[in-house]
Amino acid sequence: MKIAVDAMGGDYAPTEIIKGVEQARDAYSDVEFLVYGQEEQVKPLIQDSTRITLVPAAEVITMEDEPVRAIRRKKQSSIVLAATAVKEGEADAFFSAGNSGAVLAAGLLIVGRIKGIDRPGLTTTLPVLRKPDQSSFVMLDVGANADTKPFNVVQYAVMGQYYAQSIMHVKQPRIGLLNNGTEADKGDMAHQAIYQALASIDSLNFIGNVESRELLNGAADVVVTDGFTGNATLKAIEGTALSMLKLIKGEIMSGGLGGKLGAGLLKPVFKNVQSAMDYSQYGGAVLLGLKAPVVKTHGSSKAPTVKNTIGQIRELIETKSAEQLVTYFADHTDEMAALKESLK
Amino acid sequence: MKIAVDAMGGDYAPTEIIKGVEQARDAYSDVEFLVYGQEEQVKPLIQDSTRITLVPAAEVITMEDEPVRAIRRKKQSSIVLAATAVKEGEADAFFSAGNSGAVLAAGLLIVGRIKGIDRPGLTTTLPVLRKPDQSSFVMLDVGANADTKPFNVVQYAVMGQYYAQSIMHVKQPRIGLLNNGTEADKGDMAHQAIYQALASIDSLNFIGNVESRELLNGAADVVVTDGFTGNATLKAIEGTALSMLKLIKGEIMSGGLGGKLGAGLLKPVFKNVQSAMDYSQYGGAVLLGLKAPVVKTHGSSKAPTVKNTIGQIRELIETKSAEQLVTYFADHTDEMAALKESLK
Repeated sequence: MKIAVDAMGGDYAPTEIIKGVEQARDAYSDVEFLVYGQEEQVKPLIQDSTRITLVPAAEVITMEDEPVRAIRRKKQSSIVLAATAVKEGEADAFFSAGNSGAVLAAGLLIVGRIKGIDRPGLTTTLPVLRKPDQSSFVMLDVGANADTKPFNVVQYAVMGQYYAQSIMHVKQPRIGLLNNGTEADKGDMAHQAIYQALASIDSLNFIGNVESRELLNGAADVVVTDGFTGNATLKAIEGTALSMLKLIKGEIMSGGLGGKLGAGLLKPVFKNVQSAMDYSQYGGAVLLGLKAPVVKTHGSSKAPTVKNTIGQIRELIETKSAEQLVTYFADHTDEMAALKESLK
Repeated sequence: MKIAVDAMGGDYAPTEIIKGVEQARDAYSDVEFLVYGQEEQVKPLIQDSTRITLVPAAEVITMEDEPVRAIRRKKQSSIVLAATAVKEGEADAFFSAGNSGAVLAAGLLIVGRIKGIDRPGLTTTLPVLRKPDQSSFVMLDVGANADTKPFNVVQYAVMGQYYAQSIMHVKQPRIGLLNNGTEADKGDMAHQAIYQALASIDSLNFIGNVESRELLNGAADVVVTDGFTGNATLKAIEGTALSMLKLIKGEIMSGGLGGKLGAGLLKPVFKNVQSAMDYSQYGGAVLLGLKAPVVKTHGSSKAPTVKNTIGQIRELIETKSAEQLVTYFADHTDEMAALKESLK
């Protein structure tokens, strides 16, 4: 399999991207890489070009570029060229740590949606804390669409189910609808309608509403929500976890000798906590609903995250997650049309 | 001043409610209490009836009651009688730890909205961690309305400003709009329109969009949002903070002697962390926009939280926060009508 890599995106690009690609190449003998970037910068970084092909890309889309305009105008950019390689079948997936909006736009406008899917959904994996049989859950949409329609959320559930099967190896993932209470009649009219639609789809293991308070406790395997609420919830979880760690460290540092001594003894404990909360180990956010995997990691990603994310992409390719969605939506056109009509 | 207390609501009612009322009575010599509850249960609990008048209420609204129906049918319940006392001017504010929906319904249907305010907003106070000059912020709506219109959010900003002035003693509270990015054009059309409307109100210190990731860092003094997103964000913050504390404790317990020893030394640190995150010290959630303060605390509240919440109610009464809102909306009818029209 072949992965198209944007070498120019991210705070530590291209150095850490290339390092991560080489680590992944060493770890996964079945993966080849098409690496897109400025030749003079990237070429000297590649220590061993086994299964790595550098494709020169004259332009770079920066963090300041307006996404859609950049995709349309910077035709020689690493993002546009890499996405085009996927569109034309030269690569099986696209990876970038660059401008999120531009990566999403390239996915949507160049790689393209699967027929029957109205809106792709940005999907992230988050940790489940202290539950013996579940270490993570996935949530979508976490921000691809600020303006989501009820029918989109219903399709996210199908997409999330296949994703969880591929990545989490759960046979019948429990699908939960993020809502402001667990009863079936909670939320506004839109959420009540989404609830009924999800309950009507036989192939889904829909477990009802879940509240954001219970997500890290493993309330569901797949949490579906509109992009606005999903984005706010994801960032609230991230921000609270980071603030708590900082608060605890600050309290220790400002404590007396006892605190500092305790801190030394607790070092391994904190390491475990931080690694439990460090979802870079779960790889990047995936834009689901496209004809091939399009994956974006944090801009601050370094080589280990790049490597982990490539491992995740490899699983998505191997389990044919995109092809499964193509088949599902081709086989369920009538059901989807009826649901869309009922949710208008 | 007089506070009407529902003695029958909450997991530890009436015992802890009465205990908290007596503590508040001892702390605040200017507060009198009208306590509503079942006489045979409540009377024996009152150790000293100074400034406490027990008003018999034959019925109780339980957690299982459907809120609006209960308010309409259980006319002799402690919630209905206490809210009615406020309506009729016998008391200045209403406090309960009972059925949230019923308390909100009693506030809306019995105490009543301030003229010019379309929807009351449920307002909560949350901690700001490790910022020298800010210890808390307020957020609304956190769940009174699942179906919020842009104009409601604009009014929440005015309500939140007066509330922060009363409770946090900030002269010109920084108002932030919860959004999925900080730029002015972030979010859906509704959020862009709310942004413009907030920026147009001269009396507000509107600082623009804030992301949920930055709330605990003190991004704003008042965070306004629709009730659905506010509810999801609040619960994500709560859930993550609780899960982190549990995770850390679990890691310590499962660690070896070193971990346990460290834990002993770190006890005071954890105590500080827990108290920083324990927003029961900030009292209850206030339904703003009503003719008098209506305040609901967690169902799990014990006496100290009841006492703190009464202290908070006392400040709301003393600073005439409701009267200030009455005046503001009476003085700004034309501006509000124009904003409402522009947000249609």
